[in-house]
Amino acid sequence: MEQERTEIASLGEFGLIDHLTKNNETVQAGTILSVGDDSAVIDHFGKQTVISTDMLLEGVHFDLMYTPLRHLGYKAVAVNLSDIYAMCAEPTHITVSIGISNRFSVEALDEFYEGVYAACRRYNVDLIGGDTSSSLKGFVISVTAIGEVAPDKFVTRSGAKVNDLLCVSGNLGAAYMGLQILEREKRIFLESPGVQPDLGNKAYIVGRILKPEPRADIVNWLKEHEISPTAMIDVSDGLSSEILHICTQSGVGCILYEEKIPIHSETRDMALEFNIDPTTCALSGGEDYELLFTVKQEDYEKIARNEQISIIGYITEKEENTNLLTKQGNKHILKAQGWNAFSEQKK
Amino acid sequence: MEQERTEIASLGEFGLIDHLTKNNETVQAGTILSVGDDSAVIDHFGKQTVISTDMLLEGVHFDLMYTPLRHLGYKAVAVNLSDIYAMCAEPTHITVSIGISNRFSVEALDEFYEGVYAACRRYNVDLIGGDTSSSLKGFVISVTAIGEVAPDKFVTRSGAKVNDLLCVSGNLGAAYMGLQILEREKRIFLESPGVQPDLGNKAYIVGRILKPEPRADIVNWLKEHEISPTAMIDVSDGLSSEILHICTQSGVGCILYEEKIPIHSETRDMALEFNIDPTTCALSGGEDYELLFTVKQEDYEKIARNEQISIIGYITEKEENTNLLTKQGNKHILKAQGWNAFSEQKK
Repeated sequence: MEQERTEIASLGEFGLIDHLTKNNETVQAGTILSVGDDSAVIDHFGKQTVISTDMLLEGVHFDLMYTPLRHLGYKAVAVNLSDIYAMCAEPTHITVSIGISNRFSVEALDEFYEGVYAACRRYNVDLIGGDTSSSLKGFVISVTAIGEVAPDKFVTRSGAKVNDLLCVSGNLGAAYMGLQILEREKRIFLESPGVQPDLGNKAYIVGRILKPEPRADIVNWLKEHEISPTAMIDVSDGLSSEILHICTQSGVGCILYEEKIPIHSETRDMALEFNIDPTTCALSGGEDYELLFTVKQEDYEKIARNEQISIIGYITEKEENTNLLTKQGNKHILKAQGWNAFSEQKK
Repeated sequence: MEQERTEIASLGEFGLIDHLTKNNETVQAGTILSVGDDSAVIDHFGKQTVISTDMLLEGVHFDLMYTPLRHLGYKAVAVNLSDIYAMCAEPTHITVSIGISNRFSVEALDEFYEGVYAACRRYNVDLIGGDTSSSLKGFVISVTAIGEVAPDKFVTRSGAKVNDLLCVSGNLGAAYMGLQILEREKRIFLESPGVQPDLGNKAYIVGRILKPEPRADIVNWLKEHEISPTAMIDVSDGLSSEILHICTQSGVGCILYEEKIPIHSETRDMALEFNIDPTTCALSGGEDYELLFTVKQEDYEKIARNEQISIIGYITEKEENTNLLTKQGNKHILKAQGWNAFSEQKK
């Protein structure tokens, strides 16, 4: 069946915006004015406003050869919401700006926006603005997420105290292994286009890279159980990098137990198949969008009851440094080895 | 004198962010948490929050061959603030995300951020976040501006009423003519690199394209004189396009007098040199970042006193259509002929 292809030029810029936003329904009571004017207007009714922004560039952050546009739209929103949840805040609104070359059709953009709207519905967020522009080359996405929090109830990276427990939600390293599989299948496809990839038994880890979910559930659970994390960050660059952010900004050290790092069995199996240490995937892989946070010792009982949260270490004095205690009982200084965009590029 | 060149890779992503934001001073009382965490937090103390976002792409929105990076940084902020002022709101915060290839040095980025910070200082706006990413090709900029307005005092595009006066600030078409000069000098330079451009006597119009200023002064003046515009929009795509936005969204028509359209003498001279009708520059040029707005007839006396504001027409019933009354006394239907990003690309 041939796919329809409507040229973007046939709609014009404003026609395109109308087309992409015609089914946009807002659900937030605070949305006073949405898409269609110079700016949007929101009212947070006495709460504080939380703002975060991320840019996704084709060829750097995603490869359209194995990233369905619907997933990409969903992910572009999800990773921004993750930053709002990482403040223990509630996302309420987003703006989505895109730069597109004329290799994209209106149908392709519709797919992308289906993903954007799906994420909005899933997380009760209103799309209230954006910018639609042509690009000479490559697909460019910039999302800004706006949220709300009761006055001064937001959680920063800088509040971790000595003896606090270091906790992480879900499991780590899966997105990185999912990416390795997609990259491998891409190479196989480029060499032998007839071979169909079979990702059936790797659905979990491939899903983790293509369609991450921000941990709204964890933030809600913490609130319900009246647990106030002392520091929080989302895991986008890898566990090491995020722990170092918390320790540096809080002026503390830590002990991280290798054996406590939550790693999914599918991640572990695939890492071994690729000859990669599963712990390295968790420490340096990134894109997990789990929440890393610290809580007071007195919250131990409550935290221990949630199977979605692992206690992976504790906070120490700054002088004791940031340490990884390996399964063999060795102590290593934790280093950030997350993907470094700029040095990668130089290779 | 040789310029210093520090590779971005030598700082790393977080080092680069620290470097670019180390002198970032916030001045807004509502800035609770700025750069350096997952999100920023702001408090608008009972006011409504106004949000706008714009993307600028190298090769589409700017040409680095004739755009100094300092001006580019300034302009990237200015055009976003213009959208906030166009709501009759006050900008308070911005986020700036950039995608850069390794052809840029740290010194080049410093220049860009000098412009960003200069605009922040000029308009009392705090830089509170952003994203710094590598790009495979081209410089990508995405700015989100956040502002505040007293509850329900914002001005949309949709409130124009029959008999309202159609007003515009400053003058129009200058930025377009400035761009034509820069493009011409670029062609001359490419053909004869030895020839130095002399832009001395075109400083005004070249400045209009390279370093536009949002009309904060007009918004403040309207407030001081207790004039509440019924509709407002900023002129980014050309006067025709913006008038049509107001008329369509307000469900009205209009008469625009050609002879009343404010055009600077330098714009007029240069247009004639280029064999372009000056009125066409104003109607279709764009990038003027002036404010187009409608006010009630009863505000005529007040408005007429401000030399920075021209009354260029009035609002009619929708059935009367949107008309341009030429100097010769002919009536033309006003059409949007502003730069259409997508059809341009197909040429």
